[in-house]
Amino acid sequence: MDDVAREIRLVGRPQGFPGEDLFEVAETAVPVPADGQVLIRNAYFSVDPYMRPRMNDVRSYVAPFTLGEAMTGGAVGRVAVSRNPRYAEGEWVVHQLGWREWALSDGSALRRLDASVAPVSTALGVLGMPGFTAWYGLFVLGAPTEGETVLVSGAAGAVGSAAGQMARIAGCRVLGSAGSEEKLGWCFRELGFDAVFNYRDQSPRHALAELAPDGIDIYFDNVGGDHLEAAIGALRAHGRVVACGSISRYNDAEPAPGPRNMFMVVTKRLRLQGFIISDQYDRFGEFTAQATEWVRDGRLLYRETVVDGIENAPKAFLGLLRGENIGKMLVKVGPDE
Amino acid sequence: MDDVAREIRLVGRPQGFPGEDLFEVAETAVPVPADGQVLIRNAYFSVDPYMRPRMNDVRSYVAPFTLGEAMTGGAVGRVAVSRNPRYAEGEWVVHQLGWREWALSDGSALRRLDASVAPVSTALGVLGMPGFTAWYGLFVLGAPTEGETVLVSGAAGAVGSAAGQMARIAGCRVLGSAGSEEKLGWCFRELGFDAVFNYRDQSPRHALAELAPDGIDIYFDNVGGDHLEAAIGALRAHGRVVACGSISRYNDAEPAPGPRNMFMVVTKRLRLQGFIISDQYDRFGEFTAQATEWVRDGRLLYRETVVDGIENAPKAFLGLLRGENIGKMLVKVGPDE
Repeated sequence: MDDVAREIRLVGRPQGFPGEDLFEVAETAVPVPADGQVLIRNAYFSVDPYMRPRMNDVRSYVAPFTLGEAMTGGAVGRVAVSRNPRYAEGEWVVHQLGWREWALSDGSALRRLDASVAPVSTALGVLGMPGFTAWYGLFVLGAPTEGETVLVSGAAGAVGSAAGQMARIAGCRVLGSAGSEEKLGWCFRELGFDAVFNYRDQSPRHALAELAPDGIDIYFDNVGGDHLEAAIGALRAHGRVVACGSISRYNDAEPAPGPRNMFMVVTKRLRLQGFIISDQYDRFGEFTAQATEWVRDGRLLYRETVVDGIENAPKAFLGLLRGENIGKMLVKVGPDE
Repeated sequence: MDDVAREIRLVGRPQGFPGEDLFEVAETAVPVPADGQVLIRNAYFSVDPYMRPRMNDVRSYVAPFTLGEAMTGGAVGRVAVSRNPRYAEGEWVVHQLGWREWALSDGSALRRLDASVAPVSTALGVLGMPGFTAWYGLFVLGAPTEGETVLVSGAAGAVGSAAGQMARIAGCRVLGSAGSEEKLGWCFRELGFDAVFNYRDQSPRHALAELAPDGIDIYFDNVGGDHLEAAIGALRAHGRVVACGSISRYNDAEPAPGPRNMFMVVTKRLRLQGFIISDQYDRFGEFTAQATEWVRDGRLLYRETVVDGIENAPKAFLGLLRGENIGKMLVKVGPDE
């Protein structure tokens, strides 16, 4: 066991697109668990789009990250030392203690993981928060019916790729947008999206006019901005917007104008529903039961973009904000088996 | 019986704010009912904000008015001649045949009215479509709970004044906005709104910061525009927007930018739900049962702005779009008792 434990701390607030200078690699001693605690050796932690707004010091309904402290967020690791009777050494667990090599927990916010089901990394992706976000957003809020048309933006991301495949499972026609040919190729050729477009080459409005001339029924929104306006324009009567994220806006220093066609919310009886998945964990069991089966039988594919070494976590996170990942972006900080 | 029947026809499409020249008073012979038909002598017809978007020749989910034909819309009148066994001469009926002195119906889209319950004009206002719009929007879509704070824009209009009072009945704190001191005085002193502001003197954002520093839970939107952005900013977690109308935008020749804070739909888990009341008439009986009681016991007050004479209907409608009415705007075109 190393005797140095590294963690990534937030040391500044961004204006616009963040720089690596806002993060610091800090070294501490590996913590020693007290009675009731467990010490976890992390294998992976997650970098996610929602972390960008949490870097701002604004009163919001998700608390901002604290300056000078390690970034929090999803991580998976193995119990190295347990002084808690509920966890045995060697067990795999998921927790929210974030960007660090070692984590100390009192056992209250851990979820035990069965490492025989799937690689442990999937507990941060297709079988974890992003997969659950796709599932809850699509099935509960989007409520698709067979034959409907669904647009997913950020289609090659962890959430979007799962949402698109789930919409296929629901019997929908699925359109996806992403920002590179490689991403689009993955969605179209491997994930079964019916049509895709590159929003860097073609405006969402023009793409939708071409790919869905009769309109869409559900828009699973990961990006906001002009995708949202185009989707509102293309939605049919009683259409739904699953408002999951707005990554295209997270780095705006000044708020940009919103959709010019909001009046269509009335005329087309649209529903726009925002959600934050952490409110919904009472349905997590239902999700994992279904998603595990879909992963096993090959109906729900996933990819991971893994960056090695905790010192590269800021780079991984900023790369995620630039859209450099395909599938789930992870930072590997320890052994994963 | 006069032998001339006048009606108001739409003869042009507006660019921006409509002019009276888009309407024409046409004279025809009083129609003679065939077998199965009834001839109705109208007492009142309704001018409503939703009629403005229907003047445009755009494919929408509400069909545009047809050029050269009489404007359609809610009207109340008395059966003058009946050749339909289901309706007797002298009965009061509500119909959708609109801007005319005499209406000919096959009886299929008539609703019989009990004139002993309330003045027949209320069937076009507090006990008709506008009241039902308020009721459905507030109770079904807004789903208020006691102690919540509700903002109603267009608070002195037919829909807004009813929505505000219904929110009071639901035990909510009610804020209202309108464009004149007379309107605000009515809302505040007579209808029981807890606080009101004049959006011509104070931006909705500043007014909400002052009147609801802890935020609001429901926004009943009749106007769109900067009210909607301010409301999204002020809504608390799990807040609801009842998207009923956007009168502030109806006369824009070019679409104006939308809310700059749409990302808050996600962060605050907001729900924006548009609706068109004509979809919901299966609940009309439930509404009238409640609303009739509230009108009788004085908990649901109403006002009407009545313009006399069919030739003044365009003026009445354009006045409505300028906000010149208090309560329901009606055109009186015949005897009402």
